[in-house]
Amino acid sequence: MTVKNAFYAQSGGVTAVINASAAGVIETARQHGDKIGKVYAGRNGIIGALTEDLIDTSLESAEDIARLKHTPSGAFGSCRYKLKSLDTHREQYERLIEVFRAHDIGYFFYNGGGDSADTCYKIAQLSEKMGYPIQAIHVPKTVDNDLPITDCCPGFGSVAKYVATSIREAGYDVASMAKTSTKVFILEVMGRHAGWITAACGLAAEQEGEGPHILLFPEVEFDEAAFLAKVKATVEKYDHCVIGVSEGIKNKDGQFLSETGLKDAFGHAQLGGVAPTIAQLVKDKLGYKYHWAVADYLQRAARHIASKTDVEQAYALGRAAVEMAMDGKNSVMPAIRRLSDAPYRWDIAEAPLSQVANVEKFMPRDFITEDGFHITEACRRYLSPLIAGEDYPPFKNGLPDYVRLQNLAVAKKLPEFKL
Amino acid sequence: MTVKNAFYAQSGGVTAVINASAAGVIETARQHGDKIGKVYAGRNGIIGALTEDLIDTSLESAEDIARLKHTPSGAFGSCRYKLKSLDTHREQYERLIEVFRAHDIGYFFYNGGGDSADTCYKIAQLSEKMGYPIQAIHVPKTVDNDLPITDCCPGFGSVAKYVATSIREAGYDVASMAKTSTKVFILEVMGRHAGWITAACGLAAEQEGEGPHILLFPEVEFDEAAFLAKVKATVEKYDHCVIGVSEGIKNKDGQFLSETGLKDAFGHAQLGGVAPTIAQLVKDKLGYKYHWAVADYLQRAARHIASKTDVEQAYALGRAAVEMAMDGKNSVMPAIRRLSDAPYRWDIAEAPLSQVANVEKFMPRDFITEDGFHITEACRRYLSPLIAGEDYPPFKNGLPDYVRLQNLAVAKKLPEFKL
Repeated sequence: MTVKNAFYAQSGGVTAVINASAAGVIETARQHGDKIGKVYAGRNGIIGALTEDLIDTSLESAEDIARLKHTPSGAFGSCRYKLKSLDTHREQYERLIEVFRAHDIGYFFYNGGGDSADTCYKIAQLSEKMGYPIQAIHVPKTVDNDLPITDCCPGFGSVAKYVATSIREAGYDVASMAKTSTKVFILEVMGRHAGWITAACGLAAEQEGEGPHILLFPEVEFDEAAFLAKVKATVEKYDHCVIGVSEGIKNKDGQFLSETGLKDAFGHAQLGGVAPTIAQLVKDKLGYKYHWAVADYLQRAARHIASKTDVEQAYALGRAAVEMAMDGKNSVMPAIRRLSDAPYRWDIAEAPLSQVANVEKFMPRDFITEDGFHITEACRRYLSPLIAGEDYPPFKNGLPDYVRLQNLAVAKKLPEFKL
Repeated sequence: MTVKNAFYAQSGGVTAVINASAAGVIETARQHGDKIGKVYAGRNGIIGALTEDLIDTSLESAEDIARLKHTPSGAFGSCRYKLKSLDTHREQYERLIEVFRAHDIGYFFYNGGGDSADTCYKIAQLSEKMGYPIQAIHVPKTVDNDLPITDCCPGFGSVAKYVATSIREAGYDVASMAKTSTKVFILEVMGRHAGWITAACGLAAEQEGEGPHILLFPEVEFDEAAFLAKVKATVEKYDHCVIGVSEGIKNKDGQFLSETGLKDAFGHAQLGGVAPTIAQLVKDKLGYKYHWAVADYLQRAARHIASKTDVEQAYALGRAAVEMAMDGKNSVMPAIRRLSDAPYRWDIAEAPLSQVANVEKFMPRDFITEDGFHITEACRRYLSPLIAGEDYPPFKNGLPDYVRLQNLAVAKKLPEFKL
């Protein structure tokens, strides 16, 4: 059997568990020395492949690779760099294959969301045509939870656990102060197109009266009057109102609310921050004292409160990707398959990249209540297992002890390539 | 020995561990049945005493009282209601003593910050004069860490651990994406007057290049030019810059920065949110891509990542308050006394309320670096032990399992009192 090297890269927004997938890939590859030589990682994702800036992961100790399982962010660097169309920028794809050829790379593991699935698919197709066949396997990752076929996406479960925990805690806080202080609390969460993270906030409301009382999904057009009526009714009933809002909610004109509200001192629209816009609306129209929080990167980086299920799945998908490669598979993605809700059981199936690339999965309408302001029981059944279990990182000096790899470069063999 | 009832109330902004102090008070009181009858809690703090809305904590099970140790927020409700001056509103104080007399209350445990220490002190003085002596003991609590005499304040250590953990995690995230995405990340934290929480962010920077790279303290006048130069230098050196900013920073005119930047659609100043103001400044002047987060209540409610040291001290101070009362003390506050930094050792001393009321403790200047943008080694030595140790709450369905007490009311005996 020929031994080939492997290439691994992280793509797009990083998560609390993408490094667990990296550990799954690297540890499993190390167990297959008969087929896989070294695992090279792209420094800053696919850019590292284009610029031949490769990291030799074989120089990292087994201990440090294991520590990736509890370290958030992208250990090798990630990037937001979408390869252009194959028709107009064929040279980018050819360059990738040239780099793979120069470094004797036979396996391409690409860890990302929809865009990277598409890139992975194109690489597999083109490499075949160029006479240097690469086995391209996509490892799913996205906090947006919007990849098709797979039941859920690594990274999402941990964000879900973080936002549900945080909004529960803030809800307890607000409830205990509402008599004389804040009545309305608003937490803004990620999810520009799909409301999965907003939905996860809803898990915190388990008992009558417990927040969040209102969720604002990007899938539901923002109806100001209905929203204000709901806030008023909630405050009148429970003395306070806790709201989870997606950064991506839009008004009836299809405009992002975050772009309609605030202006800076020069009159320019302030980008981002739908929470303050909603807060101001509540204040202006209902007069309630408010507070708001914007979790931003805190939510996707919060490894300290990661979901154990999510960590396990992220690792298992990395491992499965290598195992699929060892089985001779190409142009596929290992996907989570749900076998039952309760008890939660899952395994890993094989998804053809042709069916993954360029397909987005949105929240089913029956996951949102009829009034559009909360999640249904069906949604709870889906979400609950994904936040199950804790998997705390080790702590040192009172803080999570995350690994920083050496990330030593592989010597270059090719002329420079301009991005 | 006469048996008297006790009154306990929570005051001001709640914390992740104020309920641990409540548990310390109630559990210890239950061990002194020879002197303490029931512990009544004020519903919504001191307002509950004024309106004779008392909660009978003796109806709560030992198990539920124990669960307070891991439950954030104020279990009996808290309030922002400062009693007026004794000269102008003597009737409020007289009413309190009338309620205490009606319910045979001989012990007053008031759990709060500077204002409540002042109230506690006045009650002790007046009750003596009115011929119904009450032993008034103050139990310290404030995330602002600004009470005098005590080495630290319960609630602060847990916020400190939360913000340091969160900014480390976000820092890792930003560092791994900086090549093509966000260069500057800003986390806004609490602390309108004192920079203790902002300082705690600094603990996350342990290794060369690790964020936060810049801290903006309320004690240091915001110097736009120096700040921008520091951001630029940091991005040029490390490719990214992580910033922790206090909500209370002011410009050279003494104006809160949060009030200078944003205006809503009607041209009104937008309250709160210094992070977006700083972000916009960085964007306008340096052109860097940015992200920002506002932790708001999330930070003070984050019991899931509480400091073990903080939880232990909060409980110990509640216990000590009752023990001081049993020793016949009056008009005092149990205070944390630091015996050594490393290993960290502490005990509890007795502080006279006359020296606590109306005194605020600010950050020593030598805790802030000369350039005003970070913390010194002296500050680290002070802060480090306060975030030491984890004390995770139990989880159920993937979420922290916090207690909700029954909070049953005691029958009223007096005529109504208008607030």
